[in-house]
Amino acid sequence: MSFGKAARELAAIGRRFYARGWVLGTSGNFSAVVSRKPLRLAITASSLPKGTLRPLDILQCDESGRVMGRASKRPSAETLLHIEIAKRRSAGAVLHTHSVWSTMLSDAWAAGADASLAIQGYEMLKGLAGVPSHEHRELVPILDNDQNMPRLAVLVGETLERHPEAHAFLLRRHGLYTWGETLADAERHVEILEFLFETIGRTQGGPSWR
Amino acid sequence: MSFGKAARELAAIGRRFYARGWVLGTSGNFSAVVSRKPLRLAITASSLPKGTLRPLDILQCDESGRVMGRASKRPSAETLLHIEIAKRRSAGAVLHTHSVWSTMLSDAWAAGADASLAIQGYEMLKGLAGVPSHEHRELVPILDNDQNMPRLAVLVGETLERHPEAHAFLLRRHGLYTWGETLADAERHVEILEFLFETIGRTQGGPSWR
Amino acid sequence: MSFGKAARELAAIGRRFYARGWVLGTSGNFSAVVSRKPLRLAITASSLPKGTLRPLDILQCDESGRVMGRASKRPSAETLLHIEIAKRRSAGAVLHTHSVWSTMLSDAWAAGADASLAIQGYEMLKGLAGVPSHEHRELVPILDNDQNMPRLAVLVGETLERHPEAHAFLLRRHGLYTWGETLADAERHVEILEFLFETIGRTQGGPSWR
Amino acid sequence: MSFGKAARELAAIGRRFYARGWVLGTSGNFSAVVSRKPLRLAITASSLPKGTLRPLDILQCDESGRVMGRASKRPSAETLLHIEIAKRRSAGAVLHTHSVWSTMLSDAWAAGADASLAIQGYEMLKGLAGVPSHEHRELVPILDNDQNMPRLAVLVGETLERHPEAHAFLLRRHGLYTWGETLADAERHVEILEFLFETIGRTQGGPSWR
Repeated sequence: MSFGKAARELAAIGRRFYARGWVLGTSGNFSAVVSRKPLRLAITASSLPKGTLRPLDILQCDESGRVMGRASKRPSAETLLHIEIAKRRSAGAVLHTHSVWSTMLSDAWAAGADASLAIQGYEMLKGLAGVPSHEHRELVPILDNDQNMPRLAVLVGETLERHPEAHAFLLRRHGLYTWGETLADAERHVEILEFLFETIGRTQGGPSWR
Repeated sequence: MSFGKAARELAAIGRRFYARGWVLGTSGNFSAVVSRKPLRLAITASSLPKGTLRPLDILQCDESGRVMGRASKRPSAETLLHIEIAKRRSAGAVLHTHSVWSTMLSDAWAAGADASLAIQGYEMLKGLAGVPSHEHRELVPILDNDQNMPRLAVLVGETLERHPEAHAFLLRRHGLYTWGETLADAERHVEILEFLFETIGRTQGGPSWR
Repeated sequence: MSFGKAARELAAIGRRFYARGWVLGTSGNFSAVVSRKPLRLAITASSLPKGTLRPLDILQCDESGRVMGRASKRPSAETLLHIEIAKRRSAGAVLHTHSVWSTMLSDAWAAGADASLAIQGYEMLKGLAGVPSHEHRELVPILDNDQNMPRLAVLVGETLERHPEAHAFLLRRHGLYTWGETLADAERHVEILEFLFETIGRTQGGPSWR
Repeated sequence: MSFGKAARELAAIGRRFYARGWVLGTSGNFSAVVSRKPLRLAITASSLPKGTLRPLDILQCDESGRVMGRASKRPSAETLLHIEIAKRRSAGAVLHTHSVWSTMLSDAWAAGADASLAIQGYEMLKGLAGVPSHEHRELVPILDNDQNMPRLAVLVGETLERHPEAHAFLLRRHGLYTWGETLADAERHVEILEFLFETIGRTQGGPSWR
């Protein structure tokens, strides 16, 4: 995908997610891979409200998270997480939303190594890449939040390695990260997971945890 | 209804239901009968996000679920269910939504043959075809989900036969199927039932089951 | 207000209330007084979806609920209730919405003569006509639903007489009726009451009843 | 900020907040400082629905809350609170919303001097001015509502002095007041706090109080 197209589509995604209430304040950040070798991401600039994102609010970064070319804005504070995911999963796009339900579910389990939210039996799971049936059991790892991005990126990398089948993870009290081969796949994954978090969150008896 | 008109109206329904959050991801599917003998349905193509449906995303199928003419897309994976309902109920349109509340309510009862959700006493029931009063008792059968469509279509047929007065059924953890003589009737039924599922779902003491 | 203006504004209210989810299916009905002597109401036609209301879907009725002039549509089935309220309260407009929260709260108390929902202490109450303070105690009478409109209109009349200060009443499992001197007042009352129903409905310990 | 620009932006904020359901009825009021010495505020006129706010519904007031120039409308009844906050915090804008969740949370603690809602551990807190980490502990003071504005303004002033780090306060059963150096900051604060109120309100075990 060309940078220009990526910038327009990421801006449009920001407006759609904002309308759903999934990226209030200046939360959320979105990226798309515009070159694989060398790795180049189109990514949202830092600290901008996502409901009024425009293509010129999208920056280009290299694989160290440094902005290419002249830029008056800084890239998303979480750029290193996007890079880690793009590399580990060969993802074409990475999306982070920050909804009420994902924030609640990410918090509903005591902190602990290798905590996960288990989701099974829902037809909606079939929309996740490679999932053929509602009988699929999706484990969504939950990671503790951390302001130290390089450290958090390492934890993300280890988590993705330990859970090669995971389509997403949650940051505790911080929200959802998911990705896809294309931006359309990643957006579909966001919708599916936000739907499942709400369904599980509202269900009596609460979510089921591993 | 002509195929062209059906395609435009089904696309518009997709956009309206998506706005309500009833067809997130690529869930949901919609059809309208464009010919009765031979039976021809206008139906949504498979795996498309319903919020951006366009008329050219609607295909025409025969009563075996085969696409008519040249088509680069496949029809909805659930086409056989639409055909079963269109035939058994002489419906003019069949709509499947996949909302949080319908998913939750479809799940709130142990699996069992002939499980149903009973709804009575609500004025909103009067909007269902043929229902004259709020004192009507609507039974919404709940079927176990199944990836084997021919098998599920048989179960749907048997259910419709056993419940000749039912205006809808639920697929467990999968959502709502309803229909109507016209597309407008079917859309009205969706709104009524989604409203009732939310009302019942939110009410303390939970739903009442038969 | 002229009939033409009333028709345009009632249609616009239908679209606004539909967007909020307060008039799904073909529920809800709205009227405005266009003449006081003789009494003439502009009122929504029966059985139409309110989200796509147009001015030509509004009819004119006399005080027996009969349509004036040539009409291919029937007026709202609940026209007699609008007339009763318009007369008893000298209201300029009467609005009936059918939301999830009003339906739930109308139902949360056993059937009984003179049941009411009591609301006190909320700043939002100040928006109701004549209410100067949050310390106001609003009693919202709850009436049993009834398909016999003349009989229900008599009950509505008796209720309004017994509760001269009430700004609204609830029909059990049917929704809210409110009114105002102007259409703007009535719409403001709908928003205030729907807000209060949701706030009370969500609060632990439930609503307080008289 | 010039008065004309402030009027346009305040009107736009009204429409955005109304769409979210945060200023139903005629609730809510918004201001921006257009001059610091002497203090001049652009502020919403009283008793207007905020969803249809236009720039000409914005008035200019001096630091006693008196309207400047010819005005056919009265300024917001809560103008004295805006002035108190603008002065005490050197705020550039003050926004008051009246959502369901803020109303509920403001009420969930017995009346008492120096009651506060404590919020900690949420990444979303980082969007509040000067907050570097999710480990921040934000105390949101809760004040009893009062129709006597001069008296309430004194209480607001004392509260702001006692809590120099607070970014907002709640009026019991009345809603949220927050502010920022710019209108964009204040709007971001509203979104963040409304998000947090909903998240906390929905979480089992309720909010944590000081």
